Amino acid sequence: MAYTSHNLNDTIVALATPPGVGAIGVIRLSGEEAIDIVNQVFHGKDLKKQTTHTIHFGAIRDDSGRILDEVLVSLFVAPKSYTGENVVEVSCHGSNYIIQEVIQLFIEKGARTAQPGEFTLRAFLNGRMDLSQAEAVADLISSSSKASHSIAMQQMRGGFSDEIRKLRQQLIDFASLIELELDFAEEDVEFANREALKKLVEKIQAVLRALIQSFKLGNVLKHGVNTVIAGRPNAGKSTLLNALLNEERAIVSEIAGTTRDTIEEVLNIKGVEFRIIDTAGIREAEDAIEAMGVEKTMQKVQQSALLVYVFDVVKTQPAEVQADLAKLIHENVQVLVVANKMDLNPYTKFEHYFPKWEVGSGKWEVGSGKWEVGSGKWEGSSPSSDFRLPISDFAWVPISAIHGMNIEYLKEKLFEAVLSSDMALEGTVVANVRHYEALQKADESLGRVMQGLNEGVASDFVAMDIRQALYFLGEITGEISTDDLLGNIFSRFCIGK
Amino acid sequence: MAYTSHNLNDTIVALATPPGVGAIGVIRLSGEEAIDIVNQVFHGKDLKKQTTHTIHFGAIRDDSGRILDEVLVSLFVAPKSYTGENVVEVSCHGSNYIIQEVIQLFIEKGARTAQPGEFTLRAFLNGRMDLSQAEAVADLISSSSKASHSIAMQQMRGGFSDEIRKLRQQLIDFASLIELELDFAEEDVEFANREALKKLVEKIQAVLRALIQSFKLGNVLKHGVNTVIAGRPNAGKSTLLNALLNEERAIVSEIAGTTRDTIEEVLNIKGVEFRIIDTAGIREAEDAIEAMGVEKTMQKVQQSALLVYVFDVVKTQPAEVQADLAKLIHENVQVLVVANKMDLNPYTKFEHYFPKWEVGSGKWEVGSGKWEVGSGKWEGSSPSSDFRLPISDFAWVPISAIHGMNIEYLKEKLFEAVLSSDMALEGTVVANVRHYEALQKADESLGRVMQGLNEGVASDFVAMDIRQALYFLGEITGEISTDDLLGNIFSRFCIGK
Repeated sequence: MAYTSHNLNDTIVALATPPGVGAIGVIRLSGEEAIDIVNQVFHGKDLKKQTTHTIHFGAIRDDSGRILDEVLVSLFVAPKSYTGENVVEVSCHGSNYIIQEVIQLFIEKGARTAQPGEFTLRAFLNGRMDLSQAEAVADLISSSSKASHSIAMQQMRGGFSDEIRKLRQQLIDFASLIELELDFAEEDVEFANREALKKLVEKIQAVLRALIQSFKLGNVLKHGVNTVIAGRPNAGKSTLLNALLNEERAIVSEIAGTTRDTIEEVLNIKGVEFRIIDTAGIREAEDAIEAMGVEKTMQKVQQSALLVYVFDVVKTQPAEVQADLAKLIHENVQVLVVANKMDLNPYTKFEHYFPKWEVGSGKWEVGSGKWEVGSGKWEGSSPSSDFRLPISDFAWVPISAIHGMNIEYLKEKLFEAVLSSDMALEGTVVANVRHYEALQKADESLGRVMQGLNEGVASDFVAMDIRQALYFLGEITGEISTDDLLGNIFSRFCIGK
Repeated sequence: MAYTSHNLNDTIVALATPPGVGAIGVIRLSGEEAIDIVNQVFHGKDLKKQTTHTIHFGAIRDDSGRILDEVLVSLFVAPKSYTGENVVEVSCHGSNYIIQEVIQLFIEKGARTAQPGEFTLRAFLNGRMDLSQAEAVADLISSSSKASHSIAMQQMRGGFSDEIRKLRQQLIDFASLIELELDFAEEDVEFANREALKKLVEKIQAVLRALIQSFKLGNVLKHGVNTVIAGRPNAGKSTLLNALLNEERAIVSEIAGTTRDTIEEVLNIKGVEFRIIDTAGIREAEDAIEAMGVEKTMQKVQQSALLVYVFDVVKTQPAEVQADLAKLIHENVQVLVVANKMDLNPYTKFEHYFPKWEVGSGKWEVGSGKWEVGSGKWEGSSPSSDFRLPISDFAWVPISAIHGMNIEYLKEKLFEAVLSSDMALEGTVVANVRHYEALQKADESLGRVMQGLNEGVASDFVAMDIRQALYFLGEITGEISTDDLLGNIFSRFCIGK
């Protein structure tokens, strides 16, 4: 699919609302002829005589005079529209039959079916938004949590690209001085102050690196946290999963049309999605098939960003916990250790860690706090600070999954294991792989600029590296774009956007 | 669910577009506070100062200042709106997350979730449309063929209820004269001319009966024609079904979101849907299981409005065709007999019915028309008129399903078997069971009026029957309505309409 400009002079049409049955469906047209095309089949008013941002009631009739629908037409006269072109939105009754007939009629009158993302592509090409903002539109539509929504919204409102654009402009100003030097190469003049340039490059690199750093966080916020629950058989992994999801499930089911991955369960904590994979129990494999199951668990742990290791406080020895963890942990995973079945008798094995446990009474007192089986919540201060687990390297939480004890506290710990604080939802965060890669390349180019300046290489080499850095920064906002790049970005949009 | 008026003073909100992912989703509010509620969270302009039928861009912010979305707001100031109340339509990005958050925010600000059909109910209660028109809105949304769409559109535009309303008004005029007579009962006066009243009742009954008659057709146009294909094993039933659906399938698959019943196949002929059920082959049952299969076929034939009986012209004897038909036909079914495998050698058995068949050549000439295997169409005049089948009682069509021979002609015959002419899509047609029943009851009441007039019964009895007729006619347009009736009608709507 070529996104060259000669495809973009005609008028496009598409259904802008989801397919399916609803009260209304909105058909959107954009292009120079959009108003003319609708006007040919709209009976009610002469749309060409109406002003922008107005709504008109009338009937759509085909050439035989048959009424296809009674509709509301919204007019957006260029350039005051989403695409910057004439845009008409036709609000029909929500029948697929009607919508197809009306779209077909518009096609007969000269419109063509829009390609995926073509409305937003046109908005970009007409300067209504930059490339990063256009990408955010797709992210916004697919956002399913507070975190992914916040990042997309921030990006769509231009916060991120404004920053890039300013830095790039400063670099352009310097670059033009250096290019000027090249014109006067014979005369060995130096228009661009090398020390000032170094300072600028340092400043830009600092910003780029902060943005690059933010990607890990951004990625988590946008796509959720891949989380694995692991532990020995009967440690209570599935009970824990149910306890975590219990409330969440009810919420999710209320939202019409929400689809969830069938393999994973999604837990939403403070707006961040934790995609939780329950695993087979790990233990010493007694046969080949069991070994494969353990192997699979290990693989899932390798692919995850957060490992929740659950153990049974009654049956498991501290040394066994440590042995399991030694097997499971890997470089890029955060680990949270969960001591389950605290409603039973932890005192037998962890006596020096749990000061006041009344055996069999179901009461558990720690410091000024206490918890009772069945009450489902702590009274007084949280129990966590009073404990030390043998595995001192890891954050850990005592719970009783079956009684829902300390589950809310566990959720907080899950959140903290990935996001150090509330900073997550503030500040500029990069969440787009394409931006991340462009930032890295720009940073590398600037690294070479710095090296060149330090080593006193010729201006033309420095200029070349600056041009590269400018290119990569420009790719983010779309000041530099190619057909391939645009095709790649917009083909992922839905039709109608 | 009670649809009493005290529920209808508040402001309602609902998603008006289908759930799912799309470019945009439209949230609709209606009620006195609709504009105020949106204005509280909309940042861009003061919506209270804007005129009706205008569109405004801005951001929706929650109380914490967080931007939920950048939206377009369409304003409809009472009474110039769908419901007759203040209506606001908020066009959001099509993310379920965003839509749920925005709806939730409106609910926090004082709106409540709309009940199914409540927007249209309000339109009815505020006199923006009559009850029959309101019902047509739901029909229009669920229309999936040209025929069902035409009927719903005609009804929504008021053609049908106008007619009923006029007749009812004439009857009211007469009724009031008769009621007057009752006031002067002592004096034995006669304000209402009995002969004129008889003429009016006759005229109204004629119209009602034509409408009642039209219901059979209307029902077909609205719901499609239940069609069964039956015949002996290997008569070519499935090949015929494929030949009929071949082109159609391609068309249907182009329409996004079109769902089809998985059991039946739907064939669209000139805008009318034929719901085709393929059956197991019928023959003399050789065991109990096969007998059950035949029994099932018989049941399906009983439930269908159109029977397409297919036979193999080479292998089947005319007497066998007649025996099968004797078993299959029932009172309410239309029958079309299809002579299949005409590309083979029909001459051997039907020689006197097919004048010119060149054995083995694949050429078939009849009168001035001819058909060749592979050409797929007739040249010259249609072959049908030149033949007589042994089964003279039934319409029949010679075809070759495997070569697609005469399939278009067969489709025409299918259409004609149900609908005598093009009248189907013109004139006033009743397609709603509720209207049909009300018309029947009104007709019965008028029958009693007529009888009373002929027998010279007392005015008060005549008046009572007239009042009943008026009641039933009023129910159609909603001039007479009860909570139960409204609940029954509107609870079937989708939420948001």
